[in-house]
Amino acid sequence: MICNEKMYGLGAKRSVIRELFEYGKMRKAAVGEDKVYDFSLGNPSVPPPPAVKEALIKMLTEESEIALHGYTSAQGDKGTRDTIAAHYAEEYGFRLDPDMMYMTCGAAASLTITLNAIVKDPSDEVVTFAPFFPEYRVFTEKAGAKLVVCPPAAGLEIDVKAFESLLNEHTRAVIINSPNNPSGVLYPEEQVKAVAAALERAEAKFGTTIYLISDEPYRALVFDGKKATCFPSYYKDTVVCYSYSKSLSLPGERIGYIAVSPLATEAQELYLAVCGAGRALGYVCAPALFQRLVKACDGLTSDVNIYRENRDILYSALTEMGFTCAYPSGAFYLFVKAPSGDANEFSEEAKKMDILVVPSDSFGCEGYVRIAYCVSTDLIRRSLPAFKALAAKYFL
Amino acid sequence: MICNEKMYGLGAKRSVIRELFEYGKMRKAAVGEDKVYDFSLGNPSVPPPPAVKEALIKMLTEESEIALHGYTSAQGDKGTRDTIAAHYAEEYGFRLDPDMMYMTCGAAASLTITLNAIVKDPSDEVVTFAPFFPEYRVFTEKAGAKLVVCPPAAGLEIDVKAFESLLNEHTRAVIINSPNNPSGVLYPEEQVKAVAAALERAEAKFGTTIYLISDEPYRALVFDGKKATCFPSYYKDTVVCYSYSKSLSLPGERIGYIAVSPLATEAQELYLAVCGAGRALGYVCAPALFQRLVKACDGLTSDVNIYRENRDILYSALTEMGFTCAYPSGAFYLFVKAPSGDANEFSEEAKKMDILVVPSDSFGCEGYVRIAYCVSTDLIRRSLPAFKALAAKYFL
Repeated sequence: MICNEKMYGLGAKRSVIRELFEYGKMRKAAVGEDKVYDFSLGNPSVPPPPAVKEALIKMLTEESEIALHGYTSAQGDKGTRDTIAAHYAEEYGFRLDPDMMYMTCGAAASLTITLNAIVKDPSDEVVTFAPFFPEYRVFTEKAGAKLVVCPPAAGLEIDVKAFESLLNEHTRAVIINSPNNPSGVLYPEEQVKAVAAALERAEAKFGTTIYLISDEPYRALVFDGKKATCFPSYYKDTVVCYSYSKSLSLPGERIGYIAVSPLATEAQELYLAVCGAGRALGYVCAPALFQRLVKACDGLTSDVNIYRENRDILYSALTEMGFTCAYPSGAFYLFVKAPSGDANEFSEEAKKMDILVVPSDSFGCEGYVRIAYCVSTDLIRRSLPAFKALAAKYFL
Repeated sequence: MICNEKMYGLGAKRSVIRELFEYGKMRKAAVGEDKVYDFSLGNPSVPPPPAVKEALIKMLTEESEIALHGYTSAQGDKGTRDTIAAHYAEEYGFRLDPDMMYMTCGAAASLTITLNAIVKDPSDEVVTFAPFFPEYRVFTEKAGAKLVVCPPAAGLEIDVKAFESLLNEHTRAVIINSPNNPSGVLYPEEQVKAVAAALERAEAKFGTTIYLISDEPYRALVFDGKKATCFPSYYKDTVVCYSYSKSLSLPGERIGYIAVSPLATEAQELYLAVCGAGRALGYVCAPALFQRLVKACDGLTSDVNIYRENRDILYSALTEMGFTCAYPSGAFYLFVKAPSGDANEFSEEAKKMDILVVPSDSFGCEGYVRIAYCVSTDLIRRSLPAFKALAAKYFL
């Protein structure tokens, strides 16, 4: 092959999620939009808060187009970064430094830029917790490191002992994601503390710095009166990777940020490496209009109650039917055990009912399917008979 | 250093252009916006065509926000790609294949994705023509190859013999940019033909495929009744990298595309490698609203006459004052010879007059400065006395 085989492989073999999403589009065209229960994609179903449309139209109507659509500095609009840092301090009582924030084209860009800023040697390892978003592997390997997966404890929470045993002199970073995609699980505070303590022990033992990369696209989607974890408060060497895709329901617009904790070891160097990696990967600046939108709308959230209601309906119904899944306190995913233990078989059986759910093998956790319930509540309700018929195949 | 030193280096040592731009911002704050003649940045000064604002407001007002801001497929909105291919066929009589087009976050993303799709071995070489946009080096090296620079012929055109002598069994790609940043030169057709012939000879001689990457952010900005080159018509192994930053005056919005010529060797494989590289670098999809905007506005151009007028005034005035520069038929740059032969000295002397021009060393061509005349015609006129005073230092 003339071109790069690895890149060809990544392009030819689409992610399982994208694959199923494309199948869903075809299937909907064939049998009708309302006949397919498509739970494949984490594409928000709740519209953005009304302030988003208002702010966009106001800016487009009132502001100079040249200023509005012009380049920002590579780090991103200063006013936007100031606003984000101010809201973060209000919300979590922790002061991020606007001059250590870098606006990005969404969560994936936040992660690739951060990983490329950190990784320096092919022996480098990046640890993450199963189940995990499959692109972590793609991003880590492209950055030149090896992804090491920590298997989950019961309830899909963190097995801290297993985690600590995976840390070694090659560990350069850890990716954590809470609330978690694909499980919806919010890691309890005592586990976060234990992870931080294990990292501190490893830093001392190996004389290294291990950066904790907190991937937080679901930070704003937390239910039951709980609150997402402010990782920089627990562990100093933290980098927050945020995205507005889910909180403002703007997944196609690609807007988010990286915040290097001002407490991190060599924080200034790491921040400059983030700027350098953004540059080298071709990210000149994050989309300008949406940077300005973030200034206007950071802190607002799409109506989370709709996701909560979806979760309540689906979680109750599925567990009542006999399915098993970890209780999700955030995000918009249910991670359901395949009754036969075979995720692909279960996903294929579901497909026969026109239920599209993602088999879990690529999430580093065999024997589950992911249900993205970011769909209309009506679709959830209409899907229940199909789930019931599916359950009948296993539990009668 | 804990983080990646190369990335740190790229972040700590900003591009000379960005550096000067930041100096300009400070200086304007100190002495007044209208007192600084800032020719540092290729930031379009002409507003977008009126259809841009209209289309954005219309979409925001009339369309479902969920659809409008949702993910597109990774390749980009199909309707947008169809529209671009149709316009391209009308304009150049060459049929691009919409299914071999990939929407990107602008020209830099187009280049990094294409380079990462092609480069496979550290011995790989990518050739480009001086003077060249300095980020070519950054993007090529990050993709894992070596940048080889072909020095220019007289008039900053292509020295085809020198070019051919640089092609070898390691040559994987060539980056061409016409109209050129930083010189504004549009390469004449006979040189394009000679470059294509040299590439074909090299492919035959070495038994390799050499992809020609045509970086075309300035394709729509061509004056004097001339027309930009349709590279796929001249050389089959071509990849077009386009950006709407300059043609629609939307540089901050990061929107462009990659089109693999359907005639290229292993075109389908290369296209899939492009999709894979986009994925691995964290480009989930190009910004959705602006993809849809492109569907509405592709083919339109900001008022090019303003740039032409700026060029006419500045080119006449500077050459009359004694300065020398290649005649620019496109883009919005003049590349002026430093009278002393020392670009940095000249740029510093200009700074004393509050004229900000970029020294050429990083463009692979010593002894020039780049003047980005994408500023108001009024600023051009007001800058002339300062240029005159500058000329007096050298030519009296």
